[in-house]
Formats: sequence, structure tokens, C-alpha cells
Amino acid sequence: MSMAGIIWGVGVGPGDPELLTLKAHRIIRSADVIAYPAPNDGDSLARSIVADYLPGGQVEIAIRISMDPTSFPPRDVYTKAAEDISKRAAAGKSIAILCEGDPFFFGSFMYLFEFLSGQWDMEIIPGVSSMMASAAALKIPLAARNDVISVIPATLDETAIADRLATADTAVFIKVGRHLSKIRRVLEAANLENHAHYIERATMTAERKMALADMQEATAPYFSMVVVHRRESAL
Amino acid sequence: MSMAGIIWGVGVGPGDPELLTLKAHRIIRSADVIAYPAPNDGDSLARSIVADYLPGGQVEIAIRISMDPTSFPPRDVYTKAAEDISKRAAAGKSIAILCEGDPFFFGSFMYLFEFLSGQWDMEIIPGVSSMMASAAALKIPLAARNDVISVIPATLDETAIADRLATADTAVFIKVGRHLSKIRRVLEAANLENHAHYIERATMTAERKMALADMQEATAPYFSMVVVHRRESAL
Repeated sequence: MSMAGIIWGVGVGPGDPELLTLKAHRIIRSADVIAYPAPNDGDSLARSIVADYLPGGQVEIAIRISMDPTSFPPRDVYTKAAEDISKRAAAGKSIAILCEGDPFFFGSFMYLFEFLSGQWDMEIIPGVSSMMASAAALKIPLAARNDVISVIPATLDETAIADRLATADTAVFIKVGRHLSKIRRVLEAANLENHAHYIERATMTAERKMALADMQEATAPYFSMVVVHRRESAL
Repeated sequence: MSMAGIIWGVGVGPGDPELLTLKAHRIIRSADVIAYPAPNDGDSLARSIVADYLPGGQVEIAIRISMDPTSFPPRDVYTKAAEDISKRAAAGKSIAILCEGDPFFFGSFMYLFEFLSGQWDMEIIPGVSSMMASAAALKIPLAARNDVISVIPATLDETAIADRLATADTAVFIKVGRHLSKIRRVLEAANLENHAHYIERATMTAERKMALADMQEATAPYFSMVVVHRRESAL
């Protein structure tokens, strides 16, 4: 007799393998199948975070995604992966889909969730997000009391960013990458350039952090953030 | 010879003890001293989350805080607790300060951090925040692509809330409690009342969740949130 399977979306945290939750650890080790995003060539970051915990012998589905921004999101790749996962769930298997950070905080998992959640009972295991990890590494409290936090993708246009910044006490810029000089301009216009902190690859071995004013490069890696507090500090 | 101690601010997650990170688990079990906020009468939520993991024999500092909002934050209580913690660090002890959710996301830990971080090398262990846990429990993705998320304390006045809501794709209202009817009014004025989801005590045994339209009570408990997405969904 075959039982219907179960599909988990599992947050694996920001990079440090010790920032996995006990629940994620248990589920990833017990799943029949693990699935994870990976670049066309090379290793999956999500898989590398949990590599030391894997018991061996699991079926693995690498969802290979071209990082070419002109073709993103690659619907056909996600659809094919979702069909593969669905077939295994129908065969009674348990599947853990690994998600960097938290599954529901700007992750590519959203596309798989959209496809699969209508057909399968999915459970989401929240994770430590890059936002919390960055604040902790910078030793900068995000918000206190009545502060409003705005999480602003640096991919937005300059006016949209300035508008969102204007009504926030704390601004967290994500997807900074090649938009770093735009963020600098917006912060200078708002007289907030000296309230800004830069961090890349929070909690990973290659973590780098500094005041934004001390960051000399014109662009940043994809896994970078800028954290700004209007009062200089939430304290 | 006495060594200078170490002080950790440790996020213990939103309520489910399995949502502790492996790192928090290790540190809490190894610390000489654990400190945690607690009400004047009764048990500490933060301590109850980790109770099953405590090895026994640790010194415990309960920071007793009156929940009377007219005297909040109780600076004298935090100052006294910080002095106690500081004394133990000076004696070479390791101290883990337990924080519900994430230490830097609207926690009372901020007051201790302000006092202690100038004197001691502190390390912050980020945790799964109530925001991520609520989205996971509701099975509602928070944000995708270029979405702006605003985290808005429901304690703000109605105009301020409406202004922040207007520029957000996703709004997460925290500290809802007795401000629930105000949130309902703002959402109705923005025609977003049917895009709102309510959750209380996410991941705890008493978790309750529903469409906000189905929530009949006039007020909510302190540990409640309302999540709104302008497009109804981040997908």
C-alpha cells in the first residue's frame, strides 16, 4: 500500500550550519528526498549549508537555475522540478525542499510552493533569515518600541526607494549587488549615509562588514545588505 | 586566575522548542548562567521554550518586569539586571541571555544590550522571528521579487499606520493586542480588509489563525500579528 507523501519547505538559515533549527535538522535527516536550488554549474549553497548533516543514501533533486537575470524566474525549470517532486510525493515519499534563510522571505521556493501547495499538504519550517543574521553580525539592533522596519529591494528605481526610505525608521536593503551606488545616492539625498552599515555573506566564512562609508567598491555581491537606522541606532 | 567572561544574546525562536537553532541549543546548555525576562508573577516564556534542554545546575537570573504599560520600559529593572550580569562576567562566567524570537527584532533585550555592549564583548545568536514563524504557520509567503515589506507596530496612531501601509506591498502588524479595531479601520479604508490574515501565538500549542474577517473579538493577545499582502499573495 502506498501512502501519500509529505513535502516540507525547510529554511536552512543564512549560511552558518549551526544556525539551522533543531526541527530543520531532524526533517532534513529523515526525508526520503532532498531538493535544492543550484546554479547551472557548481555547488548548491543550500545543500552546502546542511552537507555535514546528511545521512547519505537520500535521493537528491538539484534544481539547476541559470542566474541570467534576463530569463528569471525560469518557470519551465520550476515546473519540471515541481512535477518531479509531485511524482515522488504521490509514491509516498517525504521530500524536504531546502531554502536558504527563511522559505517565505524572498526565496525562489515561492515558485515551487505556488505549484505544489494546491495539490499537496505542505509544511513550512521557518528559518533564521539573512536580515536577522546581518543585524546580529553587525551588532546593530534592527528595531525597538514603535519603530517601523522597511525591507526594500535595491532593484527598485531610485524614486521608489527614496519614498520607502522616507517613512521607515529602519531600512534594510536587500539584493544590493550592482545597485550599491544607487543606494548610496538615495542615502546621501536623505542625509543618512553615515547611518548605514554594509554586510556581505553574513555568518558565512567569507563574511565582510563595515560602515557603508568605508566600503570602497562600486558593486557588491548578491548576498549583501545595507542596514540603516534613522536615529543611528534602535537603542 | 579569573578570565573575563562572555555574554551571549540568544534568540530562542517563536515558541516551538524545536525552532531553536543548533547554536542556541549548544550555548544555552554550556553557559554558566542563564538570564531571561519574566513577569512579576509566573513563568518566563523564554525559559519555558528551552526548559527541556537545560542541563540543571546553572545559575538563573529571572529579570522580573511589570507588564504595566505606564511604567515601560522599566529602566531600573534592566539596570539592576545588567549590573548583576556584568558582575558575573567579571568573575569569568559565561552568561546566555534568552530572548524570545530574535534578539534584535523588537525585544526587551535591547535595554540590556545598550548597557552591557559598551563593557563586554557580546555575541548575538539570531533566532527565528515571530514574523517568519507567522508566515510559515499561515502558509502565506511574505514577499517575492521586488516586494517591499513594512513591519508596523500597531501602537502607532492611525494616520501613521495608513501612511506606512500605503507604500508597502506586504504589511506585518506587530503588537496588535488592544489595537485590533484600529488595524481593521485602516485596512478597510485602504480596501485591504480581505487581504489580511490573523495569527496569535504562532508555533505555540495555543496557536490560532484565520482570515482577519473571521476574527470576531475586539482585542487580541499581545503575541498576535496581522499579515497583509496588497496583491492578496506574494506569489
